[in-house]
Amino acid sequence: MNAIYKQNLMAAALLCALAFATTIARAADALPSWNDTASKKSIVAFVEKVTKEGSPDFVPPAERVATFDNDGTLWAEQPMYFQLAFALDRVKALAPQHPEWKEKEPFASLLKGDLKGALAGGEPAIFQIVMATHAGMTTDEFEKNVRDWIATAKHPKTKRPYTEMVYQPMLDLLTYLRANGFKTFIVSGGGVDFMRVFSEKVYGIPPEQVVGSSGKLKFELRDGKPVLVKLPEIDFIDDKEGKPVAINKFIGRRPILAFGNSDGDLQMLQWTAAGSGARYMGVVHHTDAEREWAYDRKSSIGRLDKALDEAQAKGWIVVDMKKDWKRVFAFENK
Amino acid sequence: MNAIYKQNLMAAALLCALAFATTIARAADALPSWNDTASKKSIVAFVEKVTKEGSPDFVPPAERVATFDNDGTLWAEQPMYFQLAFALDRVKALAPQHPEWKEKEPFASLLKGDLKGALAGGEPAIFQIVMATHAGMTTDEFEKNVRDWIATAKHPKTKRPYTEMVYQPMLDLLTYLRANGFKTFIVSGGGVDFMRVFSEKVYGIPPEQVVGSSGKLKFELRDGKPVLVKLPEIDFIDDKEGKPVAINKFIGRRPILAFGNSDGDLQMLQWTAAGSGARYMGVVHHTDAEREWAYDRKSSIGRLDKALDEAQAKGWIVVDMKKDWKRVFAFENK
Repeated sequence: MNAIYKQNLMAAALLCALAFATTIARAADALPSWNDTASKKSIVAFVEKVTKEGSPDFVPPAERVATFDNDGTLWAEQPMYFQLAFALDRVKALAPQHPEWKEKEPFASLLKGDLKGALAGGEPAIFQIVMATHAGMTTDEFEKNVRDWIATAKHPKTKRPYTEMVYQPMLDLLTYLRANGFKTFIVSGGGVDFMRVFSEKVYGIPPEQVVGSSGKLKFELRDGKPVLVKLPEIDFIDDKEGKPVAINKFIGRRPILAFGNSDGDLQMLQWTAAGSGARYMGVVHHTDAEREWAYDRKSSIGRLDKALDEAQAKGWIVVDMKKDWKRVFAFENK
Repeated sequence: MNAIYKQNLMAAALLCALAFATTIARAADALPSWNDTASKKSIVAFVEKVTKEGSPDFVPPAERVATFDNDGTLWAEQPMYFQLAFALDRVKALAPQHPEWKEKEPFASLLKGDLKGALAGGEPAIFQIVMATHAGMTTDEFEKNVRDWIATAKHPKTKRPYTEMVYQPMLDLLTYLRANGFKTFIVSGGGVDFMRVFSEKVYGIPPEQVVGSSGKLKFELRDGKPVLVKLPEIDFIDDKEGKPVAINKFIGRRPILAFGNSDGDLQMLQWTAAGSGARYMGVVHHTDAEREWAYDRKSSIGRLDKALDEAQAKGWIVVDMKKDWKRVFAFENK
């Protein structure tokens, strides 16, 4: 072993020791935005038992897969799904290129500022709005649209960028899980191309760990340069029964921990629960009308009804935002 | 800092130092199964420039995505795709439960040992064989079938398990890339459920980094227990134009290095080449009739024709198995 090699080794050892010290420090105040209630304790107890070598509940790192819904679980979803807000803003931006929209629903109402009228057409209307704003362009062009929008758009209530409307306790949880060897995934009904633009920066979740709904794509050579064109056709809806299907298709491994907040997450939670060994199923319950919103069984957005019953019947963890979270958003003065 | 904490820190530092020493040792003889020809040099030169901080070609670790075709690129594909061999063996195993197959093509010919007759029906015949053996069961049941088969089946020529029919130089390459912060993915026309059974053990590639063709799935509750049933319908064919589509869908990031061996990989190579910054496009050319097989432009399996022309025209690396590889398989006496 020569001298330079030895020096490198010592330097590396020092760096590693520092990294190790940081991990220790982080573990000491894991989940700082959570109150010290049963929900937090259940998370810590679960993580400690599955990571303890020799424990009957030990899970090797490669199998520590954790999946999270996005809308209403990692970030807010009121007064409307943020991706719909993006689509509405894009309709306005694109209107000059589409004079025919002045006479055509749902665009006509939308451009007059009558959102209710525009959405009166139900799912077909929403489908038209989504396709007009999410298809007919390349994946690169779409990514740029989302990037530009997310950098400037503000939430109507808080006037904050949408990327600040993320739940700090859930960011704590993602960080804590990763520090304990978990691989964290998003499994959301939201558009995969939409979420990937900000998932790495906002959640620390890289694009290849984001699973979502998608439209069909077409590979084309344009002047010899390959592009992927977004077609106005649905490829896959990653919601309800679609979530376990997508987990199998994209991840190929059953999660040992899953978090959702609505009936759209029920099957993902059932699928997670049905594996062998230790499991953690969590439901974020929106109970805080003051700091966030309070809604569940009767909400058209993020309805939590069947999944709440099943969570209670099966002893899954129901996180009470009001009681369990010290703060909801990072921008709160707490 | 208390004493136990200090001790832990020292132990961690020592472990890290050992890990670091191992990495150094590995780098010293990177790609040991490659001859010291231009192909090996091009790989090392590429990896060194994209990993060198401050270099104009530097690529951050998160963006070091490398994609590999499987059949003919990571393992052999002669005298037939190994997954087809699996399907044929499964037909024989399932025959007692299907007395009607005795009268029904392509099964009747197959069960008489007349493979050529069975495959005379072309793609529809193959489709029937694949669906009879890959659908109508749960994902768990299918996984068990593959696991059992791969543990016992032998390659007709070498009499070795199929999992030993992997190219040692490509295993070297996967290891070398990962040691340099790359994330390695399979992007193959093969069935994703099939490959995931052995990809982690054989290639060190976890299921969530395997992209492939798939059938449709249905989520069902059976006696309250959720299962995913494999339906006899194609969901996605991950070949040709499908490869860039799948890369976008599953990975969401453009590879900076891609390896294939046939025309089915051309679009993946084009897509990789079209990104900005340093790129590496590699084609495995089957030139070694003695140690493996020699085939290219006229082969029905793994045809390499258009992609060979384009590789030559564009200066992509064409790996000559005979000249560039010190050995092909680990079991060779070399």
